[in-house]
Amino acid sequence: MLNKKMNEAHNIEIIHAQFHYARQYSLSLVKHLSAEDCQLQAMDDASPMKWHLAHTTWFFETFLLAKHLPNYTVFDESFKVLFNSYYNGIGEQFKRANRGSLSRPRLDTVLNYRKYVDSAIDKLFETKTNDTINSIVELGINHEQQHQELMLMDIKYNFSVNPTFPAYSEQQPDNKAISTPLSNIEFTAFKQSIITIGRDPHTGFSYDNEQPKHQALIHSFSFANRLVTNKEYLQFIDAGGYKKPEYWLSDGWAHVQTQQISSPLYWHFIDGQWYEFTLYGLQPLNLDAPVSHVSYFESAAYANFVNARLPTEYEWEYVAQQQNTIKHTDEGDLTPKVAKSNESISQLSDTCWQWTNSAYLPYPGFKPFSGAAGEYNGKFMNNQMVLRGGSIFTPNNHLRETYRNFFYPHQAWMCSGIRLAKDIL
Amino acid sequence: MLNKKMNEAHNIEIIHAQFHYARQYSLSLVKHLSAEDCQLQAMDDASPMKWHLAHTTWFFETFLLAKHLPNYTVFDESFKVLFNSYYNGIGEQFKRANRGSLSRPRLDTVLNYRKYVDSAIDKLFETKTNDTINSIVELGINHEQQHQELMLMDIKYNFSVNPTFPAYSEQQPDNKAISTPLSNIEFTAFKQSIITIGRDPHTGFSYDNEQPKHQALIHSFSFANRLVTNKEYLQFIDAGGYKKPEYWLSDGWAHVQTQQISSPLYWHFIDGQWYEFTLYGLQPLNLDAPVSHVSYFESAAYANFVNARLPTEYEWEYVAQQQNTIKHTDEGDLTPKVAKSNESISQLSDTCWQWTNSAYLPYPGFKPFSGAAGEYNGKFMNNQMVLRGGSIFTPNNHLRETYRNFFYPHQAWMCSGIRLAKDIL
Amino acid sequence: MLNKKMNEAHNIEIIHAQFHYARQYSLSLVKHLSAEDCQLQAMDDASPMKWHLAHTTWFFETFLLAKHLPNYTVFDESFKVLFNSYYNGIGEQFKRANRGSLSRPRLDTVLNYRKYVDSAIDKLFETKTNDTINSIVELGINHEQQHQELMLMDIKYNFSVNPTFPAYSEQQPDNKAISTPLSNIEFTAFKQSIITIGRDPHTGFSYDNEQPKHQALIHSFSFANRLVTNKEYLQFIDAGGYKKPEYWLSDGWAHVQTQQISSPLYWHFIDGQWYEFTLYGLQPLNLDAPVSHVSYFESAAYANFVNARLPTEYEWEYVAQQQNTIKHTDEGDLTPKVAKSNESISQLSDTCWQWTNSAYLPYPGFKPFSGAAGEYNGKFMNNQMVLRGGSIFTPNNHLRETYRNFFYPHQAWMCSGIRLAKDIL
Amino acid sequence: MLNKKMNEAHNIEIIHAQFHYARQYSLSLVKHLSAEDCQLQAMDDASPMKWHLAHTTWFFETFLLAKHLPNYTVFDESFKVLFNSYYNGIGEQFKRANRGSLSRPRLDTVLNYRKYVDSAIDKLFETKTNDTINSIVELGINHEQQHQELMLMDIKYNFSVNPTFPAYSEQQPDNKAISTPLSNIEFTAFKQSIITIGRDPHTGFSYDNEQPKHQALIHSFSFANRLVTNKEYLQFIDAGGYKKPEYWLSDGWAHVQTQQISSPLYWHFIDGQWYEFTLYGLQPLNLDAPVSHVSYFESAAYANFVNARLPTEYEWEYVAQQQNTIKHTDEGDLTPKVAKSNESISQLSDTCWQWTNSAYLPYPGFKPFSGAAGEYNGKFMNNQMVLRGGSIFTPNNHLRETYRNFFYPHQAWMCSGIRLAKDIL
Repeated sequence: MLNKKMNEAHNIEIIHAQFHYARQYSLSLVKHLSAEDCQLQAMDDASPMKWHLAHTTWFFETFLLAKHLPNYTVFDESFKVLFNSYYNGIGEQFKRANRGSLSRPRLDTVLNYRKYVDSAIDKLFETKTNDTINSIVELGINHEQQHQELMLMDIKYNFSVNPTFPAYSEQQPDNKAISTPLSNIEFTAFKQSIITIGRDPHTGFSYDNEQPKHQALIHSFSFANRLVTNKEYLQFIDAGGYKKPEYWLSDGWAHVQTQQISSPLYWHFIDGQWYEFTLYGLQPLNLDAPVSHVSYFESAAYANFVNARLPTEYEWEYVAQQQNTIKHTDEGDLTPKVAKSNESISQLSDTCWQWTNSAYLPYPGFKPFSGAAGEYNGKFMNNQMVLRGGSIFTPNNHLRETYRNFFYPHQAWMCSGIRLAKDIL
Repeated sequence: MLNKKMNEAHNIEIIHAQFHYARQYSLSLVKHLSAEDCQLQAMDDASPMKWHLAHTTWFFETFLLAKHLPNYTVFDESFKVLFNSYYNGIGEQFKRANRGSLSRPRLDTVLNYRKYVDSAIDKLFETKTNDTINSIVELGINHEQQHQELMLMDIKYNFSVNPTFPAYSEQQPDNKAISTPLSNIEFTAFKQSIITIGRDPHTGFSYDNEQPKHQALIHSFSFANRLVTNKEYLQFIDAGGYKKPEYWLSDGWAHVQTQQISSPLYWHFIDGQWYEFTLYGLQPLNLDAPVSHVSYFESAAYANFVNARLPTEYEWEYVAQQQNTIKHTDEGDLTPKVAKSNESISQLSDTCWQWTNSAYLPYPGFKPFSGAAGEYNGKFMNNQMVLRGGSIFTPNNHLRETYRNFFYPHQAWMCSGIRLAKDIL
Repeated sequence: MLNKKMNEAHNIEIIHAQFHYARQYSLSLVKHLSAEDCQLQAMDDASPMKWHLAHTTWFFETFLLAKHLPNYTVFDESFKVLFNSYYNGIGEQFKRANRGSLSRPRLDTVLNYRKYVDSAIDKLFETKTNDTINSIVELGINHEQQHQELMLMDIKYNFSVNPTFPAYSEQQPDNKAISTPLSNIEFTAFKQSIITIGRDPHTGFSYDNEQPKHQALIHSFSFANRLVTNKEYLQFIDAGGYKKPEYWLSDGWAHVQTQQISSPLYWHFIDGQWYEFTLYGLQPLNLDAPVSHVSYFESAAYANFVNARLPTEYEWEYVAQQQNTIKHTDEGDLTPKVAKSNESISQLSDTCWQWTNSAYLPYPGFKPFSGAAGEYNGKFMNNQMVLRGGSIFTPNNHLRETYRNFFYPHQAWMCSGIRLAKDIL
Repeated sequence: MLNKKMNEAHNIEIIHAQFHYARQYSLSLVKHLSAEDCQLQAMDDASPMKWHLAHTTWFFETFLLAKHLPNYTVFDESFKVLFNSYYNGIGEQFKRANRGSLSRPRLDTVLNYRKYVDSAIDKLFETKTNDTINSIVELGINHEQQHQELMLMDIKYNFSVNPTFPAYSEQQPDNKAISTPLSNIEFTAFKQSIITIGRDPHTGFSYDNEQPKHQALIHSFSFANRLVTNKEYLQFIDAGGYKKPEYWLSDGWAHVQTQQISSPLYWHFIDGQWYEFTLYGLQPLNLDAPVSHVSYFESAAYANFVNARLPTEYEWEYVAQQQNTIKHTDEGDLTPKVAKSNESISQLSDTCWQWTNSAYLPYPGFKPFSGAAGEYNGKFMNNQMVLRGGSIFTPNNHLRETYRNFFYPHQAWMCSGIRLAKDIL
């Protein structure tokens, strides 16, 4: 009994420390940016950095402080609407597409808002904790980590429309081609099995969409040892891949036609040379690096081109279980790393998210989180495809092999790459 | 050996007869319509009857006659483009949204086109058959049957925008309320099992998307004995269902908001009374009949409202296997039939298609049909949801328990209804 | 007094005869068309022939019979909404863009509707006439004549989207190039003057928008003796006219960019040769014929290209007064005629409408027609440009030198051409 | 001769002083704004303040320094595209709708850009002047003044979408209702005359669109002594003005229906009370103040409602000539002033721009400015309506009675009001 209490106290300390680490990490992401940079929203999907800083704070204020800290006074009544993303259960939301049209509150004010909420949470930790509070804090930390990845995705997109190609980081990227040629993709075979998928909520934090842990039957398949490279993807382009409907899903073909897409999102062909816009500014395309910022449509078309397919999320998770390693990125590395030759299965979670051929749907027996947080995941289980793994933009300690990311098939502003798989017949 | 030949000859006769039946049935669907009626296209999705009559003919001409009947001369060179629906492998296509803008060829000419092609096929049957030809004819027949359902769906929509509510059939509908109240929906339990799904191509015709036959693991669930009725759906409306985001998928909520949808597609509220537009014209809403022409979004929202969910397509097929009966509609019946009280699982395939919670994706090991027909199904495996069963609009002998129908989640002009399921935890 | 009565009786007979002529002429315009042809609506602007036949009849029924023929029973109550074009004073209107989605009433029914209304009007003429009735009949005749021109414009557009290029008339067009080269455009000078513009309503029928007759001061200008030819317009294209923003109004440049316009509406460049879609089907471009179906944007850009400008409507009317001749077309001629060499000012009203540089605005002292007919013209005096003259599509006896036609600057489906003018400084 | 030189030198000094005044005034407009405020663009039309500061500088750099200051080095090559508004003659332009998506250059950099260009112009003034240079500087000053008005218009709009209604100025507005009721609008009669309109370019600066000075004939009319007030406009709303098509131009009716407009742009009805968003934040509606921020459509509908019309621009200019006074606003006053009772014709140019019923078209004999500046006005002479007068947002010394302002009929973010006129028959 004493032990349990000590464990609990210890646990609380850990969560409290994680909270401060996560809050601090968000701030570190804007440390080289101006208030003007933090206000950019160049498309509906790519929210301003300032908005992310405020919304993640609003999340703690709304779901934690307003309910669990006695006598808590909200920082600003207008934030209830301004920084609600999509929680109809909480109330009205400021129009998403207009987030970049808010100069007030200023960045300064948002930073003060963060301090105000953080110290209220410190107070809460001092005076009162319980499992409910802990689990809200854990959800809030994970929520903030997701927004940390979004911040890097969004600032990349928001800078990309500026014809001067601003660099988010002034450091020199590690962007050299490797000296020895990368060996071809190799496929590892896996046999038909009944496997266990998903996460038991009692074994640590996971989102509701990873639950319940359940059995599934998968069929024999083989799985590529690394991601597709820019050089390989260029062969698809050079073979007329964007002009031949036979490789494309019908909706994908319509999309690239209407939007006049003929290469990955951030590629530029300038004076006979391919370049890629990165967080280090415009850089010559690194042919050995994995192709990134490709849509599901592009990924599926490429897979068709090489007579392969994308893995299902079940296959991906099964492979990841056997690898028994979710690697993390080196913090501060902002372009996907080159694979090593002749490596066994690699680049699972430290490089690019990997489009699967699984639609984002509830697992058998799925139950949304209770309360307003029930809108977190469940209502998006429609028209989106699952990505698995993780990327250089994902913060450390955020990932699990059961983690399900999801985007619409036309979207490409996340750091997404291509993992191939094949049927074994 | 002799037997085999006799069997083959017999088989050919059967297919030939089926061919004529299908071709004749298409004509019967327009027998009460004028050339003007047959030209209507009130939305992109709802093609003119004339176009269906021509396109199904073009299918036989293009995939069969042009390749297999020596010295065949096409009826009209311009039809190659005009009546190609979406086969990029064949060539250019006339713009889908403009099909209603073609007065030439006239209906008369299209009817002559049908005769011309039919007699060429008779000639082909007389002189030369083989497995390849047989299977193309089978595909052509099934293709034409799909368009027969589309013809009823499309003429219903195309008439519905006319404020005078034209009746497709002048017969009096069998639209009486039942005398004794319908008992509540009952749920039958099914246990977790490894089941067999899909169709072996050697056991009769099936589409590529139903193949290969494969094993799948399903979890315990229960399955409603009948479809949801108009009366039950009305309770959802009366409870403010279309105004409460909590029931809706995020994209579904956006859809009903933007399109200002507040009831099923063909419902009209006139002078305090609900009516439904049918192929018999405008009729008072039959409260005991199954709700029909609902989108996936509406179906999923309703299921949420009653704390249930939609079945997966695997669950549906498993139930259908055990029922061992794919019932067919009475030909000429044009509104979904009322269920009987206290019946066991019913209305599987003779009433309304049933939205499942399965995205339309390839089965493990899926291979598209070879050649240009490979575009038939595979390229649509994205962003659509599977419907199972069949409807009063489906022609006889077209269905199988493995049959996969698919539409976008916002679409409702097919005869779609709601089958509920539940998790067993 | 006796004289006055005889005059009146005579006048009534004339109007009655004009009525029958106009009604008959509308029918003659569809005599070679099928019911399918008569239902086409390939863009919002281009209504079906059937709709025109019904709407012009509805106009007589609504503004004349319903008000002035005792005990008149409307042919069909639903027509009140279906065939109301834009008269808010009358009530609701069926959506304009959906006119092509009405197969009911059938063409047959519309023809019966015409007979029904015509004989009711005969009855009205027999029993009761007065100035009010006469002037409504006159307005109805002129209204129907306007729709006769629209019918030819609309069927041309509606056929043009059919890749088989149907011919409205099977006659052979008189489309030969002239033997001797056409001499260059010559400009006639006119001095600054105070002129009289517009029409006195007591001197015969005119629209409210031509009234009141009033004085205006015009400045010295010169006026081209003929319209711009296809050959001359081709020089603009060949000089890169559609690719050089300097010739274009800002909105015009945006329009041709967005809509990807690079030649007049009905031109087609096929195998190195220019063709033009006409009511005789696709024909080689007649270089000597006037360019037709050009938008105001194209006309103004061309004028810039040759250092000229478009005339104002005041200048145009002043020139027309001095010519003292509004020529009429040969009925049944369906392509604009070639000018003669060295002719004085010609092609004023028998060839193509001529875009002016005058916005469509009320004359000083303008008063709309009284009653619901007040919506006829006044509410459109915004964002449109005035065209003057007349075209081969305009029925005989419809034109006056004071006649003001008007369209939006991007529209080109009317038979519009280019008359040049210049400042004299 | 000496005199002439002295005059010239004096003239140059004056222009140089005006230049510095104008440049300084632009800066004063942003003195209370943050860099974040200066980056807002809440609709395509409403450019960021930062963009205005840079573009007006680019104008001097491009049209003056690059051509006339020997060895001038441009501040930043990328600005050539970034800050070109619409001059195709200069080259490519950054997409207008994306101006708010540029965080780089920062506001600081733009302010340095201004200093850099200003001192280069000082240098030019010291070393070399001539008539060409003077007239470019004059054009640049007037251009900058136009943007000063746009800056106030744009920041007002850009703040208006923020639900916290930020105040541009923290001063208290002079917003009291007047003590004695305002007397009704009175109309002054003017007789038919031949008048002189427009500006002789030798009598001081004017835009090309005000030239040439020319004669025009106007008809008898009467002219309202003041602008329409909020109270009067409210009567239109209360009488159902936004729901009755009979008052509206056809395009105007479509506009208010589609955009769901039911009051002027900045009005808000909150808890039974009307408020207006102003540069002082949200304020109770001042009933005696002139209605402002109304579109041409709204102005014309209101005029119809009270059986009046809008004046033509010729009528307006004729009245202004006789008043012989273009009054200027008190600098820093940011809401339109209330009229005085029983005043003669007032509020001509110090309150709100006044929509006329004249389309924006070239005067007879119009010639655009030569060179790239020829795109300044001429290419916009289409689809826009002329406004006359001036507003509280217009900087001092910018106006003339010949001044022609122009906007699209649906636009209302300029400070526009309603002046009534009437025909005298």
